[in-house]
Amino acid sequence: MRLATLTSGGDCPGLNAVIRGIVRTANAEYGSTVVGYLDGWVGLMEDRRIDLYDDAYIDSILLRGGTILGTGRLHPDKFKAGIDQIKANLDDAGIDALIAIGGEGTLKGAKWLSDNGIPVVGVPKTIDNDVAATDYTFGFDTAVSVATDAIDRLHTTAESHNRILIVEVMGRHVGWIALHAGMAGGAHYTVIPEEPFDIADICKAMERRFQMGEKYGIIVVAEGAVPKEGTMEGGLGEEDEFGHKTFTGMGQIIADEIKARLGYDVRTTVLGHIQRGGTPTAYDRVLATRYGVHAARAAHEGNFDTCVALRGENIDLVPLESAVAHLKQVPEERYKTARSMFG
Amino acid sequence: MRLATLTSGGDCPGLNAVIRGIVRTANAEYGSTVVGYLDGWVGLMEDRRIDLYDDAYIDSILLRGGTILGTGRLHPDKFKAGIDQIKANLDDAGIDALIAIGGEGTLKGAKWLSDNGIPVVGVPKTIDNDVAATDYTFGFDTAVSVATDAIDRLHTTAESHNRILIVEVMGRHVGWIALHAGMAGGAHYTVIPEEPFDIADICKAMERRFQMGEKYGIIVVAEGAVPKEGTMEGGLGEEDEFGHKTFTGMGQIIADEIKARLGYDVRTTVLGHIQRGGTPTAYDRVLATRYGVHAARAAHEGNFDTCVALRGENIDLVPLESAVAHLKQVPEERYKTARSMFG
Amino acid sequence: MRLATLTSGGDCPGLNAVIRGIVRTANAEYGSTVVGYLDGWVGLMEDRRIDLYDDAYIDSILLRGGTILGTGRLHPDKFKAGIDQIKANLDDAGIDALIAIGGEGTLKGAKWLSDNGIPVVGVPKTIDNDVAATDYTFGFDTAVSVATDAIDRLHTTAESHNRILIVEVMGRHVGWIALHAGMAGGAHYTVIPEEPFDIADICKAMERRFQMGEKYGIIVVAEGAVPKEGTMEGGLGEEDEFGHKTFTGMGQIIADEIKARLGYDVRTTVLGHIQRGGTPTAYDRVLATRYGVHAARAAHEGNFDTCVALRGENIDLVPLESAVAHLKQVPEERYKTARSMFG
Amino acid sequence: MRLATLTSGGDCPGLNAVIRGIVRTANAEYGSTVVGYLDGWVGLMEDRRIDLYDDAYIDSILLRGGTILGTGRLHPDKFKAGIDQIKANLDDAGIDALIAIGGEGTLKGAKWLSDNGIPVVGVPKTIDNDVAATDYTFGFDTAVSVATDAIDRLHTTAESHNRILIVEVMGRHVGWIALHAGMAGGAHYTVIPEEPFDIADICKAMERRFQMGEKYGIIVVAEGAVPKEGTMEGGLGEEDEFGHKTFTGMGQIIADEIKARLGYDVRTTVLGHIQRGGTPTAYDRVLATRYGVHAARAAHEGNFDTCVALRGENIDLVPLESAVAHLKQVPEERYKTARSMFG
Repeated sequence: MRLATLTSGGDCPGLNAVIRGIVRTANAEYGSTVVGYLDGWVGLMEDRRIDLYDDAYIDSILLRGGTILGTGRLHPDKFKAGIDQIKANLDDAGIDALIAIGGEGTLKGAKWLSDNGIPVVGVPKTIDNDVAATDYTFGFDTAVSVATDAIDRLHTTAESHNRILIVEVMGRHVGWIALHAGMAGGAHYTVIPEEPFDIADICKAMERRFQMGEKYGIIVVAEGAVPKEGTMEGGLGEEDEFGHKTFTGMGQIIADEIKARLGYDVRTTVLGHIQRGGTPTAYDRVLATRYGVHAARAAHEGNFDTCVALRGENIDLVPLESAVAHLKQVPEERYKTARSMFG
Repeated sequence: MRLATLTSGGDCPGLNAVIRGIVRTANAEYGSTVVGYLDGWVGLMEDRRIDLYDDAYIDSILLRGGTILGTGRLHPDKFKAGIDQIKANLDDAGIDALIAIGGEGTLKGAKWLSDNGIPVVGVPKTIDNDVAATDYTFGFDTAVSVATDAIDRLHTTAESHNRILIVEVMGRHVGWIALHAGMAGGAHYTVIPEEPFDIADICKAMERRFQMGEKYGIIVVAEGAVPKEGTMEGGLGEEDEFGHKTFTGMGQIIADEIKARLGYDVRTTVLGHIQRGGTPTAYDRVLATRYGVHAARAAHEGNFDTCVALRGENIDLVPLESAVAHLKQVPEERYKTARSMFG
Repeated sequence: MRLATLTSGGDCPGLNAVIRGIVRTANAEYGSTVVGYLDGWVGLMEDRRIDLYDDAYIDSILLRGGTILGTGRLHPDKFKAGIDQIKANLDDAGIDALIAIGGEGTLKGAKWLSDNGIPVVGVPKTIDNDVAATDYTFGFDTAVSVATDAIDRLHTTAESHNRILIVEVMGRHVGWIALHAGMAGGAHYTVIPEEPFDIADICKAMERRFQMGEKYGIIVVAEGAVPKEGTMEGGLGEEDEFGHKTFTGMGQIIADEIKARLGYDVRTTVLGHIQRGGTPTAYDRVLATRYGVHAARAAHEGNFDTCVALRGENIDLVPLESAVAHLKQVPEERYKTARSMFG
Repeated sequence: MRLATLTSGGDCPGLNAVIRGIVRTANAEYGSTVVGYLDGWVGLMEDRRIDLYDDAYIDSILLRGGTILGTGRLHPDKFKAGIDQIKANLDDAGIDALIAIGGEGTLKGAKWLSDNGIPVVGVPKTIDNDVAATDYTFGFDTAVSVATDAIDRLHTTAESHNRILIVEVMGRHVGWIALHAGMAGGAHYTVIPEEPFDIADICKAMERRFQMGEKYGIIVVAEGAVPKEGTMEGGLGEEDEFGHKTFTGMGQIIADEIKARLGYDVRTTVLGHIQRGGTPTAYDRVLATRYGVHAARAAHEGNFDTCVALRGENIDLVPLESAVAHLKQVPEERYKTARSMFG
C-alpha cells in the first residue's frame, strides 16, 4: 500500500510525532511506503511531495516542534475547484489513502474529499483542545505547560511588588488553555470566552485578597474573553465568523479597568507564540505517536471517512463528520470547579 | 460539616494539590472546616492532627512535591485492631467524613473502615498508574516527564560513544511508566513486566540497528521486568506477594547479557527516586486539584464508600471496592503499538 | 554581632539565596544574629523588621523567586532627610552593620549611608548585568535562560509558518540579556542599546536568509534598542535620565518596519515579567549564596564601605564607590563576536 | 585559509556549539573553509573527514548534545607513532591549522602535535571543570543544572519519608560538580575528593538535623570521594593513575555506613550519564560559541600553540602548555564557604 499524509493549519507541538508514527507503522506493521505533501493542501494541489522513509531522520523528528512537511492555508473555494487536480495527483503518485492532519478547517476539507471519493483518514490537530470528538488533542498539554511555567514565575514577581498581573493566553473561541493553566498555575481568577466576565466580580475577588492580607493577584485571561453584556462601557469588539465578539488585547483592557477601579498596580503579560512552538511534552509525544499509529492502521484496514480520537485510555475511530460537528467548549461544571480555587 | 483527610503510602507529586483542592472546596462551596491527620493511618490512630485553613499557606502548596501531612505505613493487623480507637478519635474531633488519599493498600484500608461504619471517600494515588478504576492517576505524568527528560539527554551521549544505554524506570508490577517514557523518549526497545522479555529478541533489535548504520541504542526497562521462561539462564529472582518474580537490578542484568552476547559497550542508568519527587507537571496539578474538589463534594453530598476516578474528560465517583479490585496492567494492544516504534 | 539586611529595587531571582547565605554564615561562622528590614529603605525608615533565624524556613527559601523581605522605592530626598531616623532605628535595634542588597540606586544610597558613618556592605543586584564592578550579577543567568527557552520554542513556529519573529527582551540601557539570549538561542540578528541599529542592515540580513533558501528569521531586540541617527523616519522616542532616547515597544516598531520594507509576515513577542521571576538557575543560586556568605564575612571582619563582586572565579570586595561608578555596557568586541553568528 | 577541527574524549554539552562557532566565524570573518575529522584522533589518522559548510545544518546543531563529529580514544603510543601519517593527511587535505577540542589527554596530544610542527589551537573540554587555565569550561554548567534539578526533586521525597538521601554525582578527581550542585540544591552535606571525609562528621551533621526537628537530609557525594585515613574500616579502594584511591559506588558505601551507625532510612541515587548529555544550558551555549569564535580567530591570526580560556568576562589565549599543567581542584576556601551552608 502507498499512503500520503500532509499537515495543514497552524503549527502545534506533536505534528512531527504523528508523521513519525504513520511512517514507522506503515513500514513495521504493513511494509508500506509513505509520501508527504508539502505545505498542506497547497502542496497536494501543486504536487509537491517527498518520500518519507523509516530512517534515522524520521526517528529524530519526535522531539521537534513545528512540522517537517510545512503547512499552509488554501481558500476553500480554490480547494474545491481543484478536486480534479488533486485526484489526478494522487493517482499519478499511486496513493491508496490520504491521512490529513489538521484542525477544524482541514478536517472539513478532508470530509469533502472523502465525500468526493478519496479514501481519507483524519487526525485532529488543535492546540486549543476544541475538537468535539476527542477528549484531548496533542499540543494542548504543551501549551498548558508553557503557560503554567510562565505563571509559576510571575507569582513571585507579582508578590514582591504588590502587583496584580494579568496573563493573556491563547484561546480565541474556547477557554481550555486558560482553564487548565489557571488551575495548574494557582491563578486567583481565570476568564474564559464561554463565561462572559463581569469586571466588578473580578475586582471584588482582588479586593478580597488584599483585605485578607495578600499582597498580589494573578489573573489568567483567554485572548477570546468577552465582557458580560452591559458590564463594561466601551467594551465593544467585533463579531467574528462564529458570531463571537472578539477584542484585541483583552488582557490589557481588563488590566486598565482594574487599575481605574481599584488603583492597584496592574501589569499585563501576553504569552503569545511561545505557547505553540518547541518540543512537545511527554504527554503530547505519546498521544501524537498513538494517533499516527492508529491512523496508519485505519488506512490499511480500509476504515476511511474516519478520524482518530482519544476516548478515555483508548484511541478510537470516529466518523470524520463528528470531528467537525461543533466546537468543544468548557462545560459549566469545569468552570465552577475552577472558581472554587479562585481567590 | 467537618472533614478529615490523610495521605498514606509512598509519596507522589500532586498529593498537596489534592489537599489544597479539598480544603478550598470545603471552604468556598460549603463553608466547612478540614482537619489533616499526620503520617497516614498512624496519625489517625494516635490522634495527631492539624487544622487546615483556606489561607495563603494552603494556596502555596500547589507546586510542592511530597505531602505536608507526611505519610507512614501501618500493618493491616494493627490497623484493624485499632478500629475502636479510630472511631473514638474521629468522634472526639467531631469529624463527619474522612477522605483517604493513597494507593491500593490505603484504599483497602479505607474500604474496611467504610464497611465498619465510617463515612469514607477515597482518592486513588499511584505513581505507577495501576489503579483499575481510573484512566490516569496524578503523579504518573510527572514520573513519565522526568524519565523522558532523562532519556532525551541520554540519546546524544549514547550516540557520541556508540553505546547501548539501558534506562531502568519505576514499575514493579506494571509497565505504564516504561511504556509511556519509552514512547515519548523514542526508545529503541522497551521492556515491561506484563510481557516477559526474550533477551534474544532485544539483541536482534539492537543488531538490526547497528546493521542499518545506527551507532547506538536506548532500551527502557521497567524495574519489574521478567525474562520469558527458559530464555535466560540464571534468571531466577524471587516471587513477591502478587506471585510475580522480581529481580534486583534488572536493567544491569539485561545490560550484562547484551554485552556478553553482542560485545557492544552497554551501560545502565537507574533513574530511581527522582521520578517520584518534586513539583508536579501542569497535567498532574489539574488532575489532583480536580480529585480534591470532587472528593470534598462527594463527602458533603453524602456519597460515601466511593472513590474519585478520571473517566475520559470527567471525574466520576466509583464504588470504593472497584478501585482496589485488581491491578491495571498495560493491555496487549498498547504494547503492540509501542513495538511498532522500536528499532 | 548583630547584622541587618534589606532588599531594594526591582525583584531578581536569587535575592532570597543572598539572604539565606547571610543568615547561615552569620550563625555558623560567627554565632551572630540577623535582622531583616521590610520593603527596602522604607522599612528601615519606619523601623519595620523581622528576626531571621537559621531555621528550616530560611533553608527553604533558596529556590524561591522574589524576596521574603519585600522591596520598595523611596525618593532619594526623603531617604536623605531621614538619616537621623535611620541612625536611631539602627541604634535602637542594636545593629552593628547593614548589608544592603540592591541595584545602582540602592548602592548609591548605601554609599551615602556609609559616608554618613553607618557601617555598610553592599551586594549588587541587577538582572541587566550592568554593574561595573562585578563580572556577573545573580538573576542575569536566570533571565537569559528564560529568554533562551522562549527563543528555542519560537524557532519551530517561525519556521513552520515562514515568518520573521521579533523577540523583545529586557534591557533598557544595556544589551547583556539580548546579547546572551540571542547567542544562546541562535538568533539571526540581535539589537542592543549600545549599538544603534540600522533598519536597512537588519532587512538585508533577513533578505539574505530567504535568498539562501531559509524560510524564517528570529531577531532578538533589547527593549532599549535605538535606531541609528537618521535611519528611521519617525523614530523619535524620549530622552530618559541617562540621556538615552527610549521607545515604547521597539520590537513592534522594528517588526512594522521590516514588514513595510520586505513584505514578510513579521510577528512580535514581548517576553516581559517572566524574565525576572521564579526559581533561580543553579548558576544564580551559587553566585547569590556566595555573595551572601562573603557579605556576612566582610561585615564581621569590619570591611565596610565595600561591595561584594565576582571577579573570575573569586568573590572579591571592591570599594562601594566603584560599584556605582558607571553602567557596564556590552563592549564592541562582544557585539562583533555576536555578529559573526548572525544570519 | 583551510581549518580542520575534531572532538575527542568523553562527550560534553556544547561541543556542537564550538564547532558551529568555528565554522561560522571562519566563513563570516575570513571567508575560510572548515573540515571536520571524525571520531577524534582516530579519524585524523585514518583520514576520515567531512566538509563543514556554514549552512542551515550547522546552524541547527547549537542545541544538540553530543558531537556531530563523533569522538573516540586512541592510545598515546599509537598516536605518536602515527605522526607522519597525520602530517601527510593534513597536507593532502590542504589544512593550514588544526583546532583540537578535548580534555586533558586531547590537549596533551595537541601540544605534542604543536611541538612537532603542526599549527594547533586547543579548546578545553571538561565537564568536571578541572582545566587549570580557564575559569569555567562548557558542559559544567549543564551538568550542575541537571544535578541540581534532580536534587530539587529529591528534597520532597526525602522529607515525606523521613529519609536521608545520598546523591552521587560526577567528579572522579575533582569536586566542582558536587560543590556547585550541592550549594545550588541546598544539600545538607557535600563530599568532594579534595577533602577526604570523616564519616563521623557526616553522621554528626545528620544527627544534629534530626535533633533540631528536621526529618530528612540530602548528601551530595562526588563519585571520587575518599575517606580520611583511618576513619572508615574496610574503606580500601584502589589507586588510580593520579595516585588517588578510588572506590566504586562511594555513595552507597556512605549510605550503608550512616545506616549502620545511626539506624536511619538511607537511600542512594546515582545520577550517572544524564549529567553529560542533552541540550546545553544557555550559559554553556554562549561559552562554547565564544570558544569557537576565538579559536577560529586565533588560527587565522597565527596564534598557534595556544588554547582559548575564559578569564573573568573575557576569552583569552593561553599557552597550550598551561592548559594541561595540572588539575584544577576546589580550593579550600570554596569548600569552607560550602560548609557554612551545610546542616
